Order: sequence, then C-alpha cells, then structure tokens
Amino acid sequence: MEELGYWGKALSVVQSVGASIYDRVRLRKGGLVFEGLLMPPADPSDDQHLVLKLDSGYNVGVRIEEGVEVELVAKSPRYRPELPEVPMKVREGLPKVAIVSTGGTIASRVDYVTGAVYPALSARDLYNVVPELGDLASIDAEVLMSIFSEDMHPTLWSKIAEAVARKFEEGAEGVVVTHGTDTMGYTAAALSFALRDLPGPVVLVGAQRSSDRPSSDAALNLMSAVTVASRAPFAEVVVVMHGDISDTHALVHRGTRVRKCHTSRRDAFRSINHPPLAKVEGGKVELLAKPLRDRDPERRVCIDARFEEKVALVKVYPGFDGSLIDFLVDKGFRGLVLEGTGLGHAPHASFDSIKRAVDSGVVVVMTSQCLWGRINMNVYRTGVELLRMGVLPGGDMLPETALVKLMWCLGQTEDLEEVKELMLTNLAGELQERTQFSDYLR
Amino acid sequence: MEELGYWGKALSVVQSVGASIYDRVRLRKGGLVFEGLLMPPADPSDDQHLVLKLDSGYNVGVRIEEGVEVELVAKSPRYRPELPEVPMKVREGLPKVAIVSTGGTIASRVDYVTGAVYPALSARDLYNVVPELGDLASIDAEVLMSIFSEDMHPTLWSKIAEAVARKFEEGAEGVVVTHGTDTMGYTAAALSFALRDLPGPVVLVGAQRSSDRPSSDAALNLMSAVTVASRAPFAEVVVVMHGDISDTHALVHRGTRVRKCHTSRRDAFRSINHPPLAKVEGGKVELLAKPLRDRDPERRVCIDARFEEKVALVKVYPGFDGSLIDFLVDKGFRGLVLEGTGLGHAPHASFDSIKRAVDSGVVVVMTSQCLWGRINMNVYRTGVELLRMGVLPGGDMLPETALVKLMWCLGQTEDLEEVKELMLTNLAGELQERTQFSDYLR
Repeated sequence: MEELGYWGKALSVVQSVGASIYDRVRLRKGGLVFEGLLMPPADPSDDQHLVLKLDSGYNVGVRIEEGVEVELVAKSPRYRPELPEVPMKVREGLPKVAIVSTGGTIASRVDYVTGAVYPALSARDLYNVVPELGDLASIDAEVLMSIFSEDMHPTLWSKIAEAVARKFEEGAEGVVVTHGTDTMGYTAAALSFALRDLPGPVVLVGAQRSSDRPSSDAALNLMSAVTVASRAPFAEVVVVMHGDISDTHALVHRGTRVRKCHTSRRDAFRSINHPPLAKVEGGKVELLAKPLRDRDPERRVCIDARFEEKVALVKVYPGFDGSLIDFLVDKGFRGLVLEGTGLGHAPHASFDSIKRAVDSGVVVVMTSQCLWGRINMNVYRTGVELLRMGVLPGGDMLPETALVKLMWCLGQTEDLEEVKELMLTNLAGELQERTQFSDYLR
Repeated sequence: MEELGYWGKALSVVQSVGASIYDRVRLRKGGLVFEGLLMPPADPSDDQHLVLKLDSGYNVGVRIEEGVEVELVAKSPRYRPELPEVPMKVREGLPKVAIVSTGGTIASRVDYVTGAVYPALSARDLYNVVPELGDLASIDAEVLMSIFSEDMHPTLWSKIAEAVARKFEEGAEGVVVTHGTDTMGYTAAALSFALRDLPGPVVLVGAQRSSDRPSSDAALNLMSAVTVASRAPFAEVVVVMHGDISDTHALVHRGTRVRKCHTSRRDAFRSINHPPLAKVEGGKVELLAKPLRDRDPERRVCIDARFEEKVALVKVYPGFDGSLIDFLVDKGFRGLVLEGTGLGHAPHASFDSIKRAVDSGVVVVMTSQCLWGRINMNVYRTGVELLRMGVLPGGDMLPETALVKLMWCLGQTEDLEEVKELMLTNLAGELQERTQFSDYLR
C-alpha cells in the first residue's frame, strides 16, 4: 500500500502553489475561507476535489471551480518516524527461521503523522511490528523483492524458489515467504512444484489489511507462520492465514489446494477439495490432514524452478467460440488450461480450435470453473469428444494450480508425452484419485 | 446424456460384423470364448476394448488384439419402452404453470433394456416421471430446444426469454425453465436482465444426475420448482436446486447471484454475496431474504432480449500480459469483463492493452476471481490506476453475471455513456451497495 496522491486537475492546482499532502493550505471560494492540512484525496479516482483537515478535526472536500484560490500557509515536516526500538532478543536454542519478503502489506508500518505506510522489512522492523517473534525463533530476514502481488510472474517464482532453497542450505529449519494476498495461491503452487525434498516447511503468509490498521491480521498471521516454520512436523509448501474473522486461530493450507475466495475477509483463503492441513492456535500446530512428508533436517532440498511462460488459462462461457484459442496457438503458446463448465465441458463452437491446438502440439488441460468437485469427461458426450481429441482431464486440480503445474511441466522437458504423463500424475498433493464430497465449502 | 458408443479400432471391429450395442456377440481370443451382450464401453475414451455382459451377469472387457474373432449371434430388440401411463390429472382450480424445456438431464428417462436415456419432455412424460406434479399445478409443457447447456448461447437466451414472456401472456402464473446445470447460472442472469415487470416467478431448474439414477435429484428439484412457480409470493428470475445432499429441501437463488460451485454434488448451486432467496420444504416456500418484487398477476411482462455477442470474459493470472486483450480489441469486441485478482487488480504488464481497449471504446469491467466480496479499486495504487484509465468497478457482481449484463447493456444501446451508467446501476439485484461479510461460503 502506498500513499495515493492527487492527479489531473487537482494535482495541477496543488503544484501551482508548491504544496504537498499534509502541508497547511488556505482555500478561498466565493466568500468562504477554509484552512487546514491538505489530506490525500477521499476518492483517488476523482481529480475535482481537494480534501482539507480543518483545525476542528473535520475533513472537508472542496470542489475546484473557477475562482477558487489556493495559498500555501506552511510546509509540513514529513519524516519517517523512528518507532521505539524493541531490543532484538536472540535467545539461545531457538529454531532458526528465515523470512523472505517479496512485498505485500503484511510487514508494513504507518507513519501516524503523515498517514503514509512504509514497508517494514528488516529483521529489526519485524521485531518492532511483532516483538513476540523473538520468543519463537531466531529469525534471519531478507528483502528479496518488493512488488505488488498482482505483478507476480513466473520468472519471479524462480527467484523465490532459489532464495528459499538457499535459506535451507544456510541452515534454516523453516522458511517464511511474505507475499501479497492477490496471487499468493499461485506462488504457493509454484513453490510446491519447484521445490522437492524439503527438509522443513515453506510457509507463505500475507495480510488482508496492512499492519497500520487496528483490525490488521498481520500479527496473528506472522506469528502463526513462524510457529509453523519452526514447529510443524511436516515438510511441504503451505499458506498460513486467518482461520476465521476473529483472532483466535490460523489455518494451514496445502500450497496446491488453496485459493483466495474473498476480496477482503481475513479468512479469505480456503482449501479446495481437501481439508486444511492444520490449525495453529495458542502456539500449537494441530494436524487436520495427513502431510505429504515429515520434517527431516537432514534432507537436502532439490530445486527445479524453470517455468514455461507461454501457457494460458482460459475460462469458457456462453458465446465462447475458440478464436482466443486460435490466437494463442498462432502466438506459439505451448500449453492451455481451460476453465470449462461442469464436469469438464466446453462449447462445441470451440471444438475446431481445441482440436487444432492439440494437433499443433499444444498441451490442453481441462479444469472446472465450479472449482469444487472433479473433472469427469466420461459422463457426457461433450467430455468424451474432448478426451478423444486429446484434451487431458484435470481431475480435481484447481484451475490456477493446473496452470502453474503446466507451466512447470513444460519448463522441465520438451517431450510432450512426458509432460502429459506428469500432468496426469500427482506430484505435490494437487491431484487426488478421489475427492471427498465433504470437502465442499469448508 | 446420451448413449456413449464405440469408436476407432473398437468401432471398426463391431461394424465389421454388423453388431450394435446390446446385440449378442461371441468373441474368441486364443482358446477362450466369451459370449454375451455387447455393452457400451467402460471408458468411452478407450477404443481398445469391447465390453460384454456375460450370461452370469458379470461384465468383461476384452482387449482387441491380433487374432481376436468377433461374431454376431443375435440382434437385440431395441425399443423405446412405453412406461405405464399415469392418467394426467387435471384438477380444477390449480394454478397454471408453464414448463419450457431447453435440454439437460432433469426430465429424462432410462430404457432399462438398452441403458439408453431418452428425453422425457412432453407434459405426459413429466407426469410419468413425477406424477405428483399433477397435484400442484395445471401444467402446460413445451419443448423449446434440446441442447447441452455447455452449448447455450446468447442468441438462445433471447429465444428462451421470448418463450417465457409468451407463456405469461398465455396466462401462466409462473414459468419453469428446465436447463442443463453447466451454464444455468448464466442463463438465469440473462433472463433476469431480459425480462422486466414479471407477473410471477421464472424458475430455472435442472438435475445433477439424470432421472434414471436412483440418486437422482430430478424429482425434488422439479417438484420444488413447480411449487415456487405456482405458490411463491415473489416475481423474479430464480434458480431452484437441492439445498443439501439429502432430499429434504431445495433452495431458491436469485438469478443474478447464483453459481454452480461443485461439479457433481446435488447442492452444487450457491448464492454468492447474498443469502438464498427462499427455502422450499414440505410443499412450503419460506422466504430467507427480501424479494425484488411481489407477484402480481395483473402486471404485463416487458422483454428486452438483445445481447451483444462481442463481449469476452478474461481471467488474469501471473504472466498475463494483455496480448489477449489486444486480440479482442482488434477483433472488434465491444465489451470486456476482467476477472482480476483480489479487490480488482491486473498485472501492470497488461495496462497498455487495457488502456488501449478503453481508449478504443471497449467497455472494460473489473470483477474478482475471489468470487466472494467486492471490488474496491480505491485501496491500492494498481486499482486507482485502472479506475483512472476508465475501467469500471464491478462492485459485488459475479464475473459471470457481469459478462451477461455487459452483453445485455451493449445490446440495448449504442451510447457508451449509457452502457457505463447501466453497468454501475443495480438492475436486477446483481449489484449491492454493501456486501454482507456473513454471506461468505454459505
């Protein structure tokens, strides 16, 4: 999150008098005079109003019209506040946990004078935000990158995987990756395929609200993530986030089974077609499902972090005619994940394009926009026809996980038969032979 | 659902002796002889095996290899069985309900000799399948079309809307539309926008399992749909489907708020960001939320059933670079619904393409792949930048509903400003000013 300033008409008025946000300004409009601190715009998409915090404490929005006069009264001292320093307690004998930061709002802190939010990324910053971390683990923190998660990219997944592997090689017992929530599920799937033979857990964690908000979920999530990294008995890639809207517990989701299902609730992340792997409450990790493998500090991590970028995820809908697929084939795409309807269907109007894609050597995988349940292309004629064309059934893989897996498989080998076999094989808990009906909307 | 036959190698062997499914055949392989009824393939994507039902009752799969001999023993009588006829009880004074059939498996019946499934579409057939319907309403049934729901198309939505309007004009108090489940949510949204001033309910209904299965949900769904059409106090477009996996009740979902969330469970349909509108249990309709409008037999239905087909739904993901958007703009698309991440974000790598789309006069609407929650593009810089480009925030509209709505709006007017205003206005319960947090995953 960053400060959202003025733009357009409002910006040119503000700049004409050399004012910045939080400066003291005076506005004259008709016979009225408003004086106060220039605040960030109430609606950042609107360039027609300035917002002042009056000395009364009230905010007022003043429309910029013909005849409005703006005057700079005093510049505001803007500074990055030094938070009171909490001594870094490094206790003997605590487990070693590495925190790799990629961006997102989990570890940010607010400047309460200016309202701006700064990333808090060093180990010292993290202790400042959540001093209790020092009681849990000896923490090595590294800022790997600082990007919005909507800009996360397969090339960056490789960098994150490499950094995680390095941390294990340097002696970490578990690695926490802080990440924006928007695409955290995709990155969790990517690390699940890229990292094999993990000695301990890799824990992705984020926050739905930045730590400047009283309602922030950052502290519980970060504490729970470090608890899992240092104490959980398993060694796999997981996402740890709030389990409900209270502050009582966090849930641990398998990296290939998790999806952000709400734009803003703290418990937005859900395991799909599988129970959550564990629950973190009161400093304890309680298993809820069978882990893929147990923690073993002697194990040496293997990394295969190449991802093919020429893979697309395409959702079908009424009226979808396949021309998008033709375009992708012509652009040299090597893989295509369809988010079909129901048990794995697509409109017959797109069949020629799908067949052409398969015949051109594009690996086409069918998943369902239902999200829950599993592909079964043997029930109806449409599915059978697609199977006969060579479309691969995605089982109970999430569409997003199937996309990441196909990018990964095509990054491992040029042999299409091998890619197809890998896609139909369970590699990291992403593909079950049976899907429990009871794992619906839990 | 239809009979799934042999193909490829298996088909040519079967055809070479003039055999069809359910014919009696004899297979010789090495020293072994198998004789029995030729059954449909166990795995319809496999063309290497024939399946025989032996006289013992067991099925056996025989691999077609060099040296296998096939012989036709006897043709099977194949016929469409006449079910015992249930007299059509047309009671005096019952409400008039029209049933418009579009396809799907809800009203099908199995030929228990051949295993083939026939559509049961006439009023008489429906009475045969669910004789209790005659106690509920005086039913006028019409076969409008018979297509797989994955092939449903905006031009067909118009035909369905016209048929529904006609049924009301002919005196129906409620109209039931039977529909395949794959795209039922899209059609429900389409009818919600296309039909205004409804005198009574329009009820879409389907079945997750065809009525030939002992576990079919067809009967409860159909009974509940007719109950709603004839007795519910409201007049809006709804979907009626099983409320849980037992046979106790059905739920009524608003047409613009409903989505198929499971590939195969009977309670696959869920209201998103809104409670279900009502519950149907024991022949009673219990309201759970406020209807859009009450039933009024004097009201005359209005129909605006034009849909623009050049509208696409595009889901973004890590690595999405906007070239798909360029393609759609170049192809003359007029509308684009983005299924973005989180609060309404897309990768910066796609911004040039999005801006070009908007600047070319394409209406671009942002929705979230989270599905639950609502778009808020004022929180982070990425969202603000998209708003400033002219991307419309989709509020708490489902991506699928936003797609249908944009198709409808662009079908109503050439005036882009009017289209944009309509997209930001609640027309049929699809767009709420506030989204209740409690309406998550219920």
